[in-house]
Amino acid sequence: MLNFGCDYLEGAHEKILARFIETNMEKEPGYGADKYTISAKKKILDACECPDGEVFLLVGGTQTNSTVIDAYLNNYQGVIAAPTGHIACHESGAIESCGHKVLTIPQHLGKIEAGELKEFLVNFYADETYEHQVIPGMVYISHPTEYGTLYTKAELEAIYSICKEYEMPLFVDGARLGYGLAADDTDVTLPDLAKLCDAFYIGGTKVGALCGEAVVFTKKAPKFFFTTVKQHGALLAKGRLVGIQFDTLFTDDLYMEISKHAIRLANILKAGVLAKGYKLLLDSPTNQQFIIVDNVKYAELKKQVAFSTWEKVDDNHTAIRFATSWATKEEDVQALLALL
Amino acid sequence: MLNFGCDYLEGAHEKILARFIETNMEKEPGYGADKYTISAKKKILDACECPDGEVFLLVGGTQTNSTVIDAYLNNYQGVIAAPTGHIACHESGAIESCGHKVLTIPQHLGKIEAGELKEFLVNFYADETYEHQVIPGMVYISHPTEYGTLYTKAELEAIYSICKEYEMPLFVDGARLGYGLAADDTDVTLPDLAKLCDAFYIGGTKVGALCGEAVVFTKKAPKFFFTTVKQHGALLAKGRLVGIQFDTLFTDDLYMEISKHAIRLANILKAGVLAKGYKLLLDSPTNQQFIIVDNVKYAELKKQVAFSTWEKVDDNHTAIRFATSWATKEEDVQALLALL
Amino acid sequence: MLNFGCDYLEGAHEKILARFIETNMEKEPGYGADKYTISAKKKILDACECPDGEVFLLVGGTQTNSTVIDAYLNNYQGVIAAPTGHIACHESGAIESCGHKVLTIPQHLGKIEAGELKEFLVNFYADETYEHQVIPGMVYISHPTEYGTLYTKAELEAIYSICKEYEMPLFVDGARLGYGLAADDTDVTLPDLAKLCDAFYIGGTKVGALCGEAVVFTKKAPKFFFTTVKQHGALLAKGRLVGIQFDTLFTDDLYMEISKHAIRLANILKAGVLAKGYKLLLDSPTNQQFIIVDNVKYAELKKQVAFSTWEKVDDNHTAIRFATSWATKEEDVQALLALL
Amino acid sequence: MLNFGCDYLEGAHEKILARFIETNMEKEPGYGADKYTISAKKKILDACECPDGEVFLLVGGTQTNSTVIDAYLNNYQGVIAAPTGHIACHESGAIESCGHKVLTIPQHLGKIEAGELKEFLVNFYADETYEHQVIPGMVYISHPTEYGTLYTKAELEAIYSICKEYEMPLFVDGARLGYGLAADDTDVTLPDLAKLCDAFYIGGTKVGALCGEAVVFTKKAPKFFFTTVKQHGALLAKGRLVGIQFDTLFTDDLYMEISKHAIRLANILKAGVLAKGYKLLLDSPTNQQFIIVDNVKYAELKKQVAFSTWEKVDDNHTAIRFATSWATKEEDVQALLALL
Repeated sequence: MLNFGCDYLEGAHEKILARFIETNMEKEPGYGADKYTISAKKKILDACECPDGEVFLLVGGTQTNSTVIDAYLNNYQGVIAAPTGHIACHESGAIESCGHKVLTIPQHLGKIEAGELKEFLVNFYADETYEHQVIPGMVYISHPTEYGTLYTKAELEAIYSICKEYEMPLFVDGARLGYGLAADDTDVTLPDLAKLCDAFYIGGTKVGALCGEAVVFTKKAPKFFFTTVKQHGALLAKGRLVGIQFDTLFTDDLYMEISKHAIRLANILKAGVLAKGYKLLLDSPTNQQFIIVDNVKYAELKKQVAFSTWEKVDDNHTAIRFATSWATKEEDVQALLALL
Repeated sequence: MLNFGCDYLEGAHEKILARFIETNMEKEPGYGADKYTISAKKKILDACECPDGEVFLLVGGTQTNSTVIDAYLNNYQGVIAAPTGHIACHESGAIESCGHKVLTIPQHLGKIEAGELKEFLVNFYADETYEHQVIPGMVYISHPTEYGTLYTKAELEAIYSICKEYEMPLFVDGARLGYGLAADDTDVTLPDLAKLCDAFYIGGTKVGALCGEAVVFTKKAPKFFFTTVKQHGALLAKGRLVGIQFDTLFTDDLYMEISKHAIRLANILKAGVLAKGYKLLLDSPTNQQFIIVDNVKYAELKKQVAFSTWEKVDDNHTAIRFATSWATKEEDVQALLALL
Repeated sequence: MLNFGCDYLEGAHEKILARFIETNMEKEPGYGADKYTISAKKKILDACECPDGEVFLLVGGTQTNSTVIDAYLNNYQGVIAAPTGHIACHESGAIESCGHKVLTIPQHLGKIEAGELKEFLVNFYADETYEHQVIPGMVYISHPTEYGTLYTKAELEAIYSICKEYEMPLFVDGARLGYGLAADDTDVTLPDLAKLCDAFYIGGTKVGALCGEAVVFTKKAPKFFFTTVKQHGALLAKGRLVGIQFDTLFTDDLYMEISKHAIRLANILKAGVLAKGYKLLLDSPTNQQFIIVDNVKYAELKKQVAFSTWEKVDDNHTAIRFATSWATKEEDVQALLALL
Repeated sequence: MLNFGCDYLEGAHEKILARFIETNMEKEPGYGADKYTISAKKKILDACECPDGEVFLLVGGTQTNSTVIDAYLNNYQGVIAAPTGHIACHESGAIESCGHKVLTIPQHLGKIEAGELKEFLVNFYADETYEHQVIPGMVYISHPTEYGTLYTKAELEAIYSICKEYEMPLFVDGARLGYGLAADDTDVTLPDLAKLCDAFYIGGTKVGALCGEAVVFTKKAPKFFFTTVKQHGALLAKGRLVGIQFDTLFTDDLYMEISKHAIRLANILKAGVLAKGYKLLLDSPTNQQFIIVDNVKYAELKKQVAFSTWEKVDDNHTAIRFATSWATKEEDVQALLALL
């Protein structure tokens, strides 16, 4: 049976497994002091053209979000996000469990708008009771968003400019960052991103790794961030596990190469379904494609391919999601198109 | 240079890496629903002779401790532990960050005593102001302890009996559990342990895996434990990463086999140093050996071998720790003995 | 200058102050063991016709909300509330600071609807990823609401029935409870309320006391609630401070008598403004009245009377709030009507 | 029956009650914006000779401790205290519930020593694993201590000097501060204290008020401290309740005057018991006196006077505590001495 259910179906890129084997019996110190972690950090900062930044390698996305957000916020502060942001709806209250409220502002296909962010802040501070509320302390966005959409460079600049005006760090969830950077028409590069926020992470789990997210602080990490990582249970004794993975992904541009593969296949899929007369729920430039199918087709497909049921469109139609990834085979995309 | 600095110096057992490669391109569902995780859980419950228990696979030790303890405790409760317990001193306040106090009672070579536990509880409830204090809600012990020592079956029975009397779960940190089960004179087996506590974990990170700790709830997991795991950032999207590792470790008794290897080498080391006239800080039956050396020897060794400096014994002597593991080579132990 | 800005402008009912003076030099034990607290609890349970309930006297509203909610919820749970609920917007993140998310469902003039509550829960558990979200653990409503509106008995029954179906406690914020119970057309009495929820509080601060809120657990308090109160900094050494106040308020029906006074004056005010041709933002049956004034009148009034600016209605009109209370004088209401 | 059980047995100083009555029907704004709170803050800063400080009026001691400590600490930090410090043992885990560990160092009759504080910090940072631990973020002491003892000016200077060296705020719990300032041989005045720490509080509950603790930040309050107070449920709607009390206590030196009264009676009691041949557990210069009695006397006294049982001294002797206060009558002290 075909499976386009998500972008974390397979293991890791074969080069990563090869490196595990090559390096396996080397004795390396723990907790991120191993040479692979050190090398990975250097390569990441180079790729970001951000030599004064700091990189930390964590294990998973929810963990990374709550660790970074907890490190940035004071007890009285919350984090601004889209209601569709992962932290707002799919992390079992991880942010609240650290004591912080997620303050939502409107979303548009998963994105927030600079103008609405500004309006929220102006209204907030215009309310004479604002000190009885949760003080906005930072902004969280996803790139790509949970809907596969991307911010333009101009949009990021506008958002970051407001963040700076209000002295709030901007943090970008890049669980699928590779697929955003590799999109056809994006004007946002990795070095751009590093200039347009205070922290972001480069998703490994969904882009070629077994696990691992690389947090980049573009200026300086929050004080004692290592201790915060430990406190959040995010510090691996064998830091090499993530170190080797990112060191490999950032060697010879592997991370971008495999991301482009996923995008190429997503584009084939998108062109194919459009050619067959399907409508898209939205025009996603990244590895997640949202197709509208009627009930008959929906039932038929369910038997032959795994996918995500996204949302009811009307009584007769449903939007479904197909995800490609670094590991997707072109023949599977063609087989899927044949079914559609 | 020789390295006996800790038991997480190398990668993973070669059989694990082989399984990664064999299974790599299989498409498996995420979040622990993959077939390897399911298989591993089954094998673990079988090994524990605990068919009605529940197993969850988490990533690291500090994370496992704080996730389990947070799941068990109500807001007004704390966890009783030895002051040398990992949660009390080396987890950056992970337990407190969940809102809970670590209540310490005396330790003896890393162990707590049933009598003193009982005494603590009797005194606690005899204090008429006890409701103004933190209510003891569970007990945490390590087996092996942070000093390499082990509880006897009778000691565990005595502790567990008090826990049951006070309706407190007993949770056993088994970060090095394999090395405890494989010790020469221990009378505690895995099925015994499963009968003598409410939850424990089988450490993978220090016993052959790249990462991973298998939590065994011997009766029933706390309600919505999956959600607690997610909230703590401990849920891997690619659950297969830990699933494959434990599935391999619990196939053909690999976990015990490699644990025994470490113990065999630790015993060679211990016999060797005793034969050379060194004194031990304490008689550890597990993979951590604590040797007392004089200052001259200490300085000399520092140049030739990596080890942990444990504590000053007197002005002229220091206790140092050598750790063996599943990956230690006998020739390295002989080389170390030659240096000593 | 006239002042209808809120319902906590004055001190306490004169009978309370008289009791402070009469009892002042009596030596009474601390922490709620004084005879006045004991007597107040008895009188409150009698007034609630709820002999098996338990009463705790706390100090303020935000404190009471976070203490009760923290006591009821497990780590993985959140509290369902209207977005206009006090806990959702005006408590500086007190609930989140205890680790819990406020889960909002639609509000209608400050009230939630049983049907929408049910729909939320059905949809929640129908989502196959619900275990990755915050689990709904209890329901919070305000009576009167923050808009001065009231639930009918049938509405409370419908909400409570759903709470019981989902095994979630229902908690009612009664910061202005007296003004709700004393409203002309309400069919909800204090004994009714005690039958239709698991916990509620009888607001003292806004109804005749200097401070104090009486939490009534209609069945049994959460275990070790006293300790939770202490942990939340809500336990007064001199419990008599709140004990005497509630003992007085619940003697000879004083609480209802002074609440009725506020309602009588609110009704005079409402009738008066309607007679003068003003529109109401909504028809509040309690002590808060929301009047729509044009910009000219708004500016004029600002110079002569203190009130709350509630919200812009359109470019030329604003809704403003006048609050009466136990302490409001009828001559002031007449003076206000003269200004309008 | 005589009662020397604690220092919060009675209500409030009569002048406070008189002020409640005089001001009762004045309409004052809420949340600390009332004129009495403003006046009280000014008088307190004047008394402290600390014109650039900031004062906040909170309700109770445990609440004040957790609010101030939570405001000062980052997520990765803990607070250093004596194991006998109130926050370490008698606040139901309030500090931990905010996510912070209480780091204990040795105590001597309730006091910590500068030398041991320094030693703790030197050892902490000398441990190469310190980033895996809780980072010391501030120091908490009580003056008077829970044993009635007092720091000398030189001792406070030494402790504060170390705090400044390590960039940690020093916070002084002054729940019984008046009784410390009024002690016969103390060389610490209120202006001294304001120079020798970053924050302290002036206890009202135990020194003449029904409730209330005045926090003095000697330089500047932590950012958004008002919001932190609200979040902790420590913000009174009717701020006048505490405002009037402190305004009265700091008018015409009432606070010191009533504190001296308690000390005078404590001294009469101490002299009396010494003259009768009793031994003291320790020589307390403040309002708590610790007397050693034999078992026969103990049983006899129990029938005639309320006191605190402090600790067993040996099989035949027990230390008991008598507390005087602003409200104690000299005739009661004489009656107590007659019984002894």
